[in-house]
Formats: sequence, C-alpha cells, structure tokens
Amino acid sequence: MEFGIQFFPDVTPEEKSGAQYWTESLHLAGLCDAYGYSHVRTVEHYGHPYGGYSPNPVVFLAAAAERTRRARLVTGAILPVFNHPLKVAGEIGMLDAISGGRLDVGFARAFLPHEFRKFGRPLDESRARFDEGIAQVRALLETENVTMAGRFHSFENVTSLPRPTQRPRPPIWIAASSTDESFLAAGRNGYFVMTFPRAHKDIRRWLEMYRASWAEAGHPGRPKVMIAFHMFCAADRGYARALARPRVNAYLHSLVDASSDWGEGTTSKDYPNHPAMIEILKKANFDAQVANSTCWVGSPADLIAMIHAYHDAVGGIDIASLQVNFNTTTVTEAEASMRLFATDVMPAVAHLAPA
Amino acid sequence: MEFGIQFFPDVTPEEKSGAQYWTESLHLAGLCDAYGYSHVRTVEHYGHPYGGYSPNPVVFLAAAAERTRRARLVTGAILPVFNHPLKVAGEIGMLDAISGGRLDVGFARAFLPHEFRKFGRPLDESRARFDEGIAQVRALLETENVTMAGRFHSFENVTSLPRPTQRPRPPIWIAASSTDESFLAAGRNGYFVMTFPRAHKDIRRWLEMYRASWAEAGHPGRPKVMIAFHMFCAADRGYARALARPRVNAYLHSLVDASSDWGEGTTSKDYPNHPAMIEILKKANFDAQVANSTCWVGSPADLIAMIHAYHDAVGGIDIASLQVNFNTTTVTEAEASMRLFATDVMPAVAHLAPA
Repeated sequence: MEFGIQFFPDVTPEEKSGAQYWTESLHLAGLCDAYGYSHVRTVEHYGHPYGGYSPNPVVFLAAAAERTRRARLVTGAILPVFNHPLKVAGEIGMLDAISGGRLDVGFARAFLPHEFRKFGRPLDESRARFDEGIAQVRALLETENVTMAGRFHSFENVTSLPRPTQRPRPPIWIAASSTDESFLAAGRNGYFVMTFPRAHKDIRRWLEMYRASWAEAGHPGRPKVMIAFHMFCAADRGYARALARPRVNAYLHSLVDASSDWGEGTTSKDYPNHPAMIEILKKANFDAQVANSTCWVGSPADLIAMIHAYHDAVGGIDIASLQVNFNTTTVTEAEASMRLFATDVMPAVAHLAPA
Repeated sequence: MEFGIQFFPDVTPEEKSGAQYWTESLHLAGLCDAYGYSHVRTVEHYGHPYGGYSPNPVVFLAAAAERTRRARLVTGAILPVFNHPLKVAGEIGMLDAISGGRLDVGFARAFLPHEFRKFGRPLDESRARFDEGIAQVRALLETENVTMAGRFHSFENVTSLPRPTQRPRPPIWIAASSTDESFLAAGRNGYFVMTFPRAHKDIRRWLEMYRASWAEAGHPGRPKVMIAFHMFCAADRGYARALARPRVNAYLHSLVDASSDWGEGTTSKDYPNHPAMIEILKKANFDAQVANSTCWVGSPADLIAMIHAYHDAVGGIDIASLQVNFNTTTVTEAEASMRLFATDVMPAVAHLAPA
C-alpha cells in the first residue's frame, strides 16, 4: 500500500489567501520524496471555496514537479466537460515533459451543478462529454495526425504537442463514485480507479467488479485503486481529534454547500444517485467517519488500527491519497502530521495489498 | 532597459523531445535571478513545431516560478480566442498565487490560420473574441460576483478563485504587431505593449502613438514596451554567427511554414495586413536582421553597438525579451551566451531608456 498527499483547497479568501494556500501546499509537496509519500495530487473545481482555488490541477502540479524528484503528479481530476480536448492533451504533454514522465492523469465527470451552470453546460451532457473528451484526449496523446468528428468537439489532422514523455501516454485514472457502470467501464478500458470512501459494502462490491472487469478484458499489468482520506496524525489522540474535528466538519459543510442544488430539486439522467447522495452527505460528520475508519485522525496506533480495519472492510486498496492540510490546518501542523505518519504508521501498513 | 528571456520552442520531436526542451528551459530560467534577467516568458501555440510545445504558457511558468525568486513570469501571450475566460482567470489567479505575485499577463489575438482551423474558430471572429475575452477575464480578476452576457461566453454571478495576489490584478500586456489601432487601444486602456521588430520607422511611429495615447487617457505610471529578439553572445563574432545563422533561419522558416495559409489565398477582415506581412517574412533572414540590429548575435562589443543602434532607431524601449535557446541551440551554448551577455553587455546598455 502506498501513500500520497492530496491538496483539496476548502478555504475562503478570509481564511487563507491563494498565495498562502499554494505556498504552504508547495512546501508540503516538497516533503514527499524524503518522507516516502508517493504522489502529489490536486483537483479541478471552480468559483466556490470547495476546491475553487484549483481551477487547473496541471498548473499546481507543474510547480510541485519542481519540489519533487520521485513522487508522481496526479490530476485528481481533470474535468473534460469544462475543457477543450486540444488544451487538455497539450497540457498533459507539457506536464509530462516538465516532470520527466511522472504524470498520472485522472479524469472525472464533475458533479457540482453550480459548475455546470457557470460554464453553461447541461448536466444531462455530463456522461457524453466525459466519454467523448477522454476518447479525444487519448487519441491525441497516443497517435499523430488525429481527425475526430465528435458531438461536442471536432478537429482534423492534429498532432498534439509536445508528444507525451511516457509512451504511449501517461496512465489514465477514472474517478468513479456511485454507479456500477463507472467501475465496470474503468476495468473494461484498462484504466485505474480513484474514488472516496462510501459504505464499505458498496466499495468492496465495486472494487471486486472493477478488478473482475479488468481481468475479463485481459489487460496487462494489475488494476489499481486509489482512495482519498482526511489524515491528521499526532502523538496524542485527543489533541489530534480536537484540532481536526471542526476542520473536517467544515470541509464536509463546504461540500454540502457546493452540492446544495442536488438537495433543492435539481435532477439529471446523468446523475441518478446524486440527490440521494447529498442527503447522505448532509448526515456525514467527523466522528461517524472516524468510527468507521474513513477519517484517519488520531495517534499512530489509532491510524494503524484504522488502516487495517479499512483494508479488511473493503478488500484492500493500492494507494491512499491523504488530505493533509484541509480547511484551516496550518502548515506546521500538517508537516508534523505528515512526518509522524511517515515514521510511525507507514512502515506498519505498507505491506497491506489487495488480495 | 531591462532584459529577460523568452522560451519560444521551435523544434521537432526529432530535434528535441518535449522533456529535453522544457528541462533545458527550466535550467536556463533558473539562471535569471543570479544573472540579472528580469523575466521569464513563454508563448501559446499549437500543433506545429513553431511554438507548439507550449500550448499553455501558465504551465511552464508555474514551474519556472519555482526556479526563480525575483524574475517576473510573463505570458507572451495567452490567446483568449482559444480559451474559456473562466479558465484563463482561474489560471492567472493560481500562477499569481504560486509565484507570490510575480505574474505579468500578456494577451494576443493569435495569427496562425492553422490554429483557428484546429479549434474551429473563424478568423473573422479574432478581434471580437480577443476584445470580449480580455474584458471578461479582467472583470473576473478585478471584481467578485461577475455577471456578463457576451457574444461568445456568458456567465452569472461568478467569483473567480483564487483571487489575484496582485491587486486589483496582475499587469496586462497586449501583443501588438501590425495596426495603428492595436497600439492606440493599448495606450487608451492603460495596458503595456509587447511586440517584435518590424521596420524601424513603423516601430518608432507605433511606440510614439502608444505613449501619446497612454498620456492622453491620463493613466497613472508609465507606459512600457517589450520587444522580442533572438540573442546569442560569444567572445568570437564568427563563432557566434556561424552557430546562430542556420538556427535563426530555421526559426524564420518555421514561422513562414506555420503562417503559410496567408500566402495561399487566406484573407480575413481581422487581419488586413497579414498576407503582405507573410511576403515580407519570406524574405527575412539572419544576415539582414543582424545588419539592421534586430537579431542580437555577435561579440559583446557587437551587441552593445546593436542595442544602441536599435535604441536610437526606434526611440527606446523598456524591456528586451531574449530568445536564448532557439531551434537546436544547446543548453550549454545558451547558458554561456546568457552569462557573457549579463557580464559584458547588460552593464553597458542598462542605462538606455525611452526619452
């Protein structure tokens, strides 16, 4: 099992300026190689404290590539629905070049109605734009002189530059969260999967479906699963939880606020489960997540136990992507937490792997 | 007079991979602070060796920000015609944050028909998309809760994040090249101007118009002009010119090739002068540019004389943006050239300034 760090900004300008947030995040990214964190990851969101400081993950990751030599750079995730495939393919080529071939490209469908509204995109085009976008970007990365006539974008005889450093292209990850089809399609296409904690039995079932789908399609290599967790580690459990509780809850409130349209009558054929998901999200809280081992906050012994429990509950994952500076967590607090996790937790759980 | 460096890739994958080109460019960017170069700049182009390794200048500049502490990061230039204003404003906010407020944002109209074709944009929409794009990005940077209904993009109640580090926003530069109106409008709007060498008498006239327009509009501060030059400096003139001649000529051929539609019957109301410009470009060559002091290649004494001559011919400029690793120039050659220019040329010309 590997551990990387994920930057998911969820602060207002009054809490932290963009300059402060990203300066602190770059400092933390710079600790990865020495501490043994295997990736740096960030999101794509817009115009709301929930993620909005990162409208293009490639921009931050280009800077983070300069603070690391070994860590992978992970887009978690690029949203094809809001981007032109020629831009996305070109930016992937640039970041893969700048990082010396350390890019992993995650794509997601997006799920916040306010973002679709800002870009004037119908929610009902979500899946079609996602499918077409990935197919077009993939073709632009893998081949030259590409001609494609799509429903949303068309182009003739384009060779995307720079050509990818990794051949035929960087690994592709798919963000899947709530439907069987997302996990099945990822396996069928030979993509890796990134997700976040849901009910253990659902995750276990989806991961089994994903791995079976991968095997059935006969792809070489092994499927990979990355799951995101909040993590805060300190010698004293009470201190860790007292600090992290309001911040994780603030993150969850920010997510609920950003998603609020789903609870106010918005529906879409492309998001059949989201109105129900928001109702579940509204009830989510720090203590419940700690209790079911999906919010990794506590002493090193607590976290070792939680990670084992989570492994047993879902059948094992390959990579945990840790939110280390969520909400108003200070850079000093995050650095100490990352260091303690690296020295006192990682060695005790690194052997865990999917069956 | 200040000197910065500009990365304008013009190599094929066979000449230099993207990884090699950008790794070398980052190394050279890392010399700026120590050598006294005041900016790092790169372009936006697509799908052709002429510039195509840089489909998003913000991506490279985010990495370059990590190699510098003082140098400004300059987009030279972002092309609103190919980008969504919400993306551009967001990326500007991120880079301004990552660089600690060192971003200068240059915008251009784009001029290569093949790029308009790839994105499915009519050439005749060039000026309208440019004007609308800058107005929308500027509003998103300067104010919150922005609602704009444009011809090409509309959005309601958007607060672009992260908010810019420089307030109200980073300085805006406009790439102007061939019409009075471009220079007049830049002055009227209080924008700085970036251009490239044309006939001395035209440049002199345009810069006078620009500065008069700025003064007439009553903007605070001083107008600024940046012009791009190829530069290669070595102790021995013969060596410098023998090395640079084929490479500058290759760059010019690449430009002519990328622009070829203009010579093959393409016309546009938004580019009245481009068919004629391509005919002039076809005749451009290294020796003619050296002779009229617009290609700065030679010994330190040669360059001091050329820079004085150029200053006298056009009436002075504020910043020279130097292409130091054009075409197949090696990183070793470029570094030696940058060092010699910094020690033996800059001190002798730094006092030059517009009247």
